[in-house]
Amino acid sequence: MTHLRNEAPIAVFDSGLGGLTVVAALTELLPREDVVYVGDTARVPYGTRSAQTVLNYAHACARLLREQRAKLLVVACNTVSAVALDPLRRELLYPVLGAIEPGAAAAVAASEAGIDARIGVLATPATMRSGAYPKAFAALGSHAHVFVQPAPLLVPLVEEGWLSGDVPRLAVREYLKPLVERDVNALLLGCTHYPLLGAIVMEEFEALSGRQVPVIDSAHAIANEVKALLESQQLGTDRDYPGRVRIIVTDQADEFESMATRFLGRPLGDISVTAVDL
Amino acid sequence: MTHLRNEAPIAVFDSGLGGLTVVAALTELLPREDVVYVGDTARVPYGTRSAQTVLNYAHACARLLREQRAKLLVVACNTVSAVALDPLRRELLYPVLGAIEPGAAAAVAASEAGIDARIGVLATPATMRSGAYPKAFAALGSHAHVFVQPAPLLVPLVEEGWLSGDVPRLAVREYLKPLVERDVNALLLGCTHYPLLGAIVMEEFEALSGRQVPVIDSAHAIANEVKALLESQQLGTDRDYPGRVRIIVTDQADEFESMATRFLGRPLGDISVTAVDL
Repeated sequence: MTHLRNEAPIAVFDSGLGGLTVVAALTELLPREDVVYVGDTARVPYGTRSAQTVLNYAHACARLLREQRAKLLVVACNTVSAVALDPLRRELLYPVLGAIEPGAAAAVAASEAGIDARIGVLATPATMRSGAYPKAFAALGSHAHVFVQPAPLLVPLVEEGWLSGDVPRLAVREYLKPLVERDVNALLLGCTHYPLLGAIVMEEFEALSGRQVPVIDSAHAIANEVKALLESQQLGTDRDYPGRVRIIVTDQADEFESMATRFLGRPLGDISVTAVDL
Repeated sequence: MTHLRNEAPIAVFDSGLGGLTVVAALTELLPREDVVYVGDTARVPYGTRSAQTVLNYAHACARLLREQRAKLLVVACNTVSAVALDPLRRELLYPVLGAIEPGAAAAVAASEAGIDARIGVLATPATMRSGAYPKAFAALGSHAHVFVQPAPLLVPLVEEGWLSGDVPRLAVREYLKPLVERDVNALLLGCTHYPLLGAIVMEEFEALSGRQVPVIDSAHAIANEVKALLESQQLGTDRDYPGRVRIIVTDQADEFESMATRFLGRPLGDISVTAVDL
């Protein structure tokens, strides 16, 4: 029984394809694990919708996730993690890891300001409204001041592949201004799409403030958390050959492959892709 | 019977709130008509999804539209008009008017180049892929050369209210460059969101090309078409007092009111708003 469970895949759930940044971090850190990715591309983005609608969508995807018989679910979407983590935990029979706590913990660790930490979080409007980030920092026992800035335009910018040039640079600058005014000393990218704009975020913050701050990308924080959990629960695979990645999406438009490649940071190769109608 | 039907509302369907630009044009031109607006805000945007998913969503909304007992349906969404107009016509028992033909006809009328007309259309990726615009121009007997440029980022820019400043200006410029190279002599805004960026489109085209071209906004073209249809079918209201506007949405996030106000061009006032779960 234990053995069977160890060979089950790690499931990763996201509202769209942004969570493939988490898959990239997972396969780098845990190359022998199988990964099955579920992306609700038919209803992306979640971050600009009401909490009730995000709950409804997570519930609809839970059925699909149950069928994957995974050993662990990683909710790569910060909006779902902020709004629907407990309902998902009730609906699934395996452990569910959210994106908020690993990111918050990594930001606290990265900030060198200790008790004077002032952490700026870029997030979607739904994540901001949920209050999940301030709550997560408080739960860590951190006294950090947390400022959450909604940055809704960064999702479509990344989805369209506008990762360099004046348009993303000026958009990032607009969103960073209030955080510079708050004098933050660490930045947390609170959405799976944002790591692709990480370098621009770093450069624009320095240009606006004259200071450098650590920019924390929750994809790597999540992968580290998964590794620690597999070790502590003795849930890691026993195989000594590379794991397989499967992708399941609810809509596959023509732009799918170029978008997926962008988030994965490599060509799809032998990754299987299935489109299902929810 | 005829009388009852004349007093029924005009229904307007859009993927989100952008179609309220059509409602604004309708209430200006036909102030005594009742209007009921259905916006699928839970699943906006449609324009970046596959044709099959757009068809599924239009089908789900058709039920809601049937319940409105309207005398006429205006599909304000160009993507739905491009992909799902015939299926909607089969599902509804009243006339259905799309957004593509009125816009195309207005562009042909506005272009002064006659047989040498070269018309640039800004549209969503799904509308472009459908080939609906070249088809509509051909159906009009026009020999215009039609160049459709996908401009997906303009939808989220308008939704976030970034209607002025460098970010929308540079994004518009990027999308216009290929149309300037094609030497177009008229521009058609092929998405209900784009009229809010109409002035920027006009200015940037002139800045890039050194020429002024007519910029056609399909909202007004649609309203004119509705007026003509009501007259020819003797379907206009007999009332001599102002009509009422009702809005039905599938998701009502916190940003709803500011967004709706932006597209309507006026405060909501006594407009009733209902959120339904599809």
